[in-house]
Amino acid sequence: MAKLEDIAKLAEVSPTTVSRVINNYGSLSEKTKNKVFTAMKELNYQPNSLARSLKGKSSKIIGVIFPGVSNPFFGQMVETIENQLFDRGYKIILCNAGKNKEKERAYLRMLIANQVDGIIAGSHNLEIEEYQQVGLPIISFDRYLSENIPIVSSDNFQGGKIAAEVLLASGSKNIQMISGANQPNSPTNRRLVGFKEVIEDNNLKFGLTEIKYNASPNIKGMKIKEVLSNNSVDGIFCTDDLTSLLVFQQAHQLGLRIPEDIRLIGYDGTSFIQEFHPELATIEQPINDIVTLMIDLLLQRIKDPDCNLQQNYVLPVKAIAGETSRRISE
Amino acid sequence: MAKLEDIAKLAEVSPTTVSRVINNYGSLSEKTKNKVFTAMKELNYQPNSLARSLKGKSSKIIGVIFPGVSNPFFGQMVETIENQLFDRGYKIILCNAGKNKEKERAYLRMLIANQVDGIIAGSHNLEIEEYQQVGLPIISFDRYLSENIPIVSSDNFQGGKIAAEVLLASGSKNIQMISGANQPNSPTNRRLVGFKEVIEDNNLKFGLTEIKYNASPNIKGMKIKEVLSNNSVDGIFCTDDLTSLLVFQQAHQLGLRIPEDIRLIGYDGTSFIQEFHPELATIEQPINDIVTLMIDLLLQRIKDPDCNLQQNYVLPVKAIAGETSRRISE
Repeated sequence: MAKLEDIAKLAEVSPTTVSRVINNYGSLSEKTKNKVFTAMKELNYQPNSLARSLKGKSSKIIGVIFPGVSNPFFGQMVETIENQLFDRGYKIILCNAGKNKEKERAYLRMLIANQVDGIIAGSHNLEIEEYQQVGLPIISFDRYLSENIPIVSSDNFQGGKIAAEVLLASGSKNIQMISGANQPNSPTNRRLVGFKEVIEDNNLKFGLTEIKYNASPNIKGMKIKEVLSNNSVDGIFCTDDLTSLLVFQQAHQLGLRIPEDIRLIGYDGTSFIQEFHPELATIEQPINDIVTLMIDLLLQRIKDPDCNLQQNYVLPVKAIAGETSRRISE
Repeated sequence: MAKLEDIAKLAEVSPTTVSRVINNYGSLSEKTKNKVFTAMKELNYQPNSLARSLKGKSSKIIGVIFPGVSNPFFGQMVETIENQLFDRGYKIILCNAGKNKEKERAYLRMLIANQVDGIIAGSHNLEIEEYQQVGLPIISFDRYLSENIPIVSSDNFQGGKIAAEVLLASGSKNIQMISGANQPNSPTNRRLVGFKEVIEDNNLKFGLTEIKYNASPNIKGMKIKEVLSNNSVDGIFCTDDLTSLLVFQQAHQLGLRIPEDIRLIGYDGTSFIQEFHPELATIEQPINDIVTLMIDLLLQRIKDPDCNLQQNYVLPVKAIAGETSRRISE
C-alpha cells in the first residue's frame, strides 16, 4: 500500500505538504493541491475518505500523547486537559506513549490520517522529524519538537534557581542535584542552568547525578543509595517529586534524618504530592494554567492554521514549603 | 430537535431498542427496525448518518469512563486498558467523570450517538436506567449498572477477609474499618461482609467509619483524626491505599506510632504504592488481569452482541506484606 512518503516523492513535495493537503490544513496553492491529489490517485491512496468527508473541518477530537497517566503528574495533567477540553466541546483520544517508539509512531500516523483536529504532546521518543511531518496543529508541553510547534512550559530556569535558594537558606553546603538524563533543546535543561547559577554565585559546587526518567523505581533507588552513601551530601534537589520520595525512603533506610542530616526539595508539586505528602518541599508547576494556555493556543491554530504563535510560552512557578527543607538551628 | 425518547414514544418501543437500531446492535426484527426508522424519518432525526456509514460495524474506538486518572489506581487502570487495547487494534476516548453527572451523561450520549464500538465503565454518578438504555456493549469494573452488563471485580469478599486476618495476626483487638460510603448492589460492599465475618468469628467487634469517596483529602484527614483521637484503636483497615496514607500521616501528627501503637492495612496495591510506599501493607487487586478480562468480554460482546456472558467475574486478590501490619512482640 502506498505511504505518505510515496505520494510526496511522486508529487515532488514534502510529506508535510501531503499531510496538509489530506487534512485540508494551512495555506496551500491550488497547484500544489492538484499535484498531491494526482499522485494520490495514481498510487490509489485512500486516506480514509469517508472520515474526511464526515470530518469536514472538525472532528471535535484532540489527540493527547503523554508518557503515561499512571504517573501522578501526567495523570493530573491529562485529567485537567480532558476536563477543560470537555468544557470547550472537545473529547480526547489518549495515547500513553511510555518508552514505546513504535506505539507513538502508530498513534501519530493514525491521528494524521483521519481523526483529530489537533494534538497535545508531552512525550517524544521519536525523532523530531516525525513530528515536523505531521501537518496538523500541535502544541507541546515542555519538549522541543520542531520550529513550528509552540512549547508551553513552566519557568524551569526560575524553578532551578528557587530550588537552589531554598537549599542554601536551609543551611546546605554539600549539594547534589538528581535529574533525568538531559536532552538537547529540552526546556527542562533550564532547571539545571538556573540551579547552577545560584550555587556558583555563592561560590559553592554541586554534584549532578543523571538517572533516566523511565528507569524503574528500584533501579532509581539503587542509584540514589549510591549518592547518599558515597558523599557527605547535606542537600538534594530532585527534578521531580517521585524521585524526591525515593530519596526520602532511601535516606530513612540508611538511617539518615531529613531534614536534620539532609535537606530535600523536589519539583512538580501535583495535588497528589501536596495533599498526601505535605512534608515534601517542592517547586509547583501551575498545571491548570499550563493546560489552559496549551488549549487556547491549540484552538487558535485549529481556527487559523497560519496564525502567528511564539515558539516558547513560559509560566511562573512557586516554592511550596515543607518539613524536608526546614533549616536546622545549630 | 428530536431526542431518542421521542423516537421511542412514537415507535412504541423502548429507548434501548431505538439505540440498538441506531447502533445496529443486537437481534432486532425487521418490523421493529422499520417502526424505528419510520419514527426517525417522521421526526427528522439524524443520528450522525455520515458517522454511521463511515463506521460500518466498527470505529475501533472504545469509550472509557472512570472517576479520574489523577488517582493512581484509576491512572494505572486506564493506562493498562489503553496499552492492552492498543495491542488489539483499538484506541480509547477517555472520560474522567469525576463527580459530574452532567458530564457522564453527555459522554454517554455522545458515545451512544456515533463514535465507539463499546464502553468500559468504572464510574457511575448516574441513575442505573441511563446505562440500561445505552444499547452498546458495556463492561463494568466493580460497579453494578444493570442486569445485562457484566461486572469484573477482584474478590472483594476474600480481600475483606484477608485484611481482617492480617490485623488479627498482628495482634490488633480494637479494630476500625474506614470505607467509602456504601452503595447498594456494589461489589465493593463485599469487602465489609468478608471483614465482618472474620472479626465476628473471632468474637470481636469493630467500628465502621464511612467517608465519601470523593471527599477532599483534607476533609478525609479531619475525620480520620477524629477516629484516631476518640478511640483506643489498635488496628485499621482502609478500603483504599490513599486513605491508608492519610491515616499514616494523621497518626504521625498525633504522635501515634505505626505499627507499635496501631497496625494498618490498605486496599488496591497499585504499582505506585508498592514502589513508593513499600511500608504500607495492602490487598493487591490484579489490575492487569482485570483489564485483560474486561477487554476479552467486551470484544466478545462487540463480535456477538447476543453472546451469553455471566453477570459477575471475580479475580483473586493477594496480601502484600508491609511494615505497617507487623506484629509487635509484647
